[in-house]
Amino acid sequence: MAEEKEKLTIVVFSGDLDRALAAFILATTGASMGMEVSMFFTFWGLNVIKKNEGGIRSKGLMRKMLNFMNRGGSRRLKLSEFNMLGLGTWMMKRLMKDINYPSIDDFITMAKDMGVKLVACTTSCGVMGLSEDAFRSEVDSMAGAAYFLGEARNSKVALFI
Amino acid sequence: MAEEKEKLTIVVFSGDLDRALAAFILATTGASMGMEVSMFFTFWGLNVIKKNEGGIRSKGLMRKMLNFMNRGGSRRLKLSEFNMLGLGTWMMKRLMKDINYPSIDDFITMAKDMGVKLVACTTSCGVMGLSEDAFRSEVDSMAGAAYFLGEARNSKVALFI
Amino acid sequence: MAEEKEKLTIVVFSGDLDRALAAFILATTGASMGMEVSMFFTFWGLNVIKKNEGGIRSKGLMRKMLNFMNRGGSRRLKLSEFNMLGLGTWMMKRLMKDINYPSIDDFITMAKDMGVKLVACTTSCGVMGLSEDAFRSEVDSMAGAAYFLGEARNSKVALFI
Repeated sequence: MAEEKEKLTIVVFSGDLDRALAAFILATTGASMGMEVSMFFTFWGLNVIKKNEGGIRSKGLMRKMLNFMNRGGSRRLKLSEFNMLGLGTWMMKRLMKDINYPSIDDFITMAKDMGVKLVACTTSCGVMGLSEDAFRSEVDSMAGAAYFLGEARNSKVALFI
Repeated sequence: MAEEKEKLTIVVFSGDLDRALAAFILATTGASMGMEVSMFFTFWGLNVIKKNEGGIRSKGLMRKMLNFMNRGGSRRLKLSEFNMLGLGTWMMKRLMKDINYPSIDDFITMAKDMGVKLVACTTSCGVMGLSEDAFRSEVDSMAGAAYFLGEARNSKVALFI
Repeated sequence: MAEEKEKLTIVVFSGDLDRALAAFILATTGASMGMEVSMFFTFWGLNVIKKNEGGIRSKGLMRKMLNFMNRGGSRRLKLSEFNMLGLGTWMMKRLMKDINYPSIDDFITMAKDMGVKLVACTTSCGVMGLSEDAFRSEVDSMAGAAYFLGEARNSKVALFI
């Protein structure tokens, strides 16, 4: 009854499409295997969970510039390699669609439905001037490195992606 | 007698020469320390275990293009940084040879001899249109994310490289 | 009395400013939570702990060239993305200063004060022709992959960054 689930904790540091896909494949597979999964988005990884629509409000010229140039959002992610000015990324998305493979948006919905926790890193948000309203509604909460380590040390598997 | 070996499980996501080297150094060191080691190659990491010779057959124009441009094979890997149109990669290989350091090909042979399992990710293969004959003979099998997580949660150490 | 501390072991493979920051945030947070933390610097990650001042002596033309072009030092690290010929990196450093966020130099001092062990990888040093005097005084020792795996398999959390 009181048996505890095995935990899987993933730091999503990267904002690359390919690494984000790897993270969500592992997260949803872990959840389907009965694991309790947390994803902790930090630094460029925050781009994965930013809203796709609307601007991001932040204070100060430099943060405004950063958030304009580093816009983010699941549909703006690029491949870490082979991007080729967007052509490679476009091709990869087509290849995935071709075999009915889920998009990042699909994966976020699936992950939420399966109980995966999505957490945004407060420290990175502080540096980049992001507040909770920059993120999509599926994001559960904001927390710092201590939260992540607390989860990770009680996890069977902890990965940095 | 029935004592179980400690496990080391490594996801090789990257197809960069330097990261592939790190993965094989850890894998062979782990095996030499008596650990049971699995390497799970996914996404760009599949390039590390593709055959060096011969073309890769895949269906559909876009997959043909992808596998032509993203050719892979242990001898075509590049440094993640400092590649400098191939000069940096060439230098690094020379420096390694200079101190009789093993190449990726040597490492694959060593790893196999030491019982390291080399597994190709079925999901990535599906997206990229790769079948088993794209890979060198040292590859043991193909398997999905559930296989990796099953290994990882019974491992002392699981790394994402 | 003899209770053992939980361990956190981090491989710092990357020499990118953002990844180095993530590594030090986790290391110092882990230490503040009472964990015993080791950081194992390898490959490009060695740049993080190289001295900022003075040249690096190494033997042979090619190693001299490598260490000239791949100079390293905490103050020369760049962002993995968004570097924009240095502008993005400069912006990020300004944003961090703006909220009184520690620099890599500050983090190294903090980490040392908290008992974090900083270890340089002997293998990478061999390939790149680096000896102990290339590194800043805070570095505790040099050791190989077997040392890292020995630590990692006794750790609650082991990450590859």
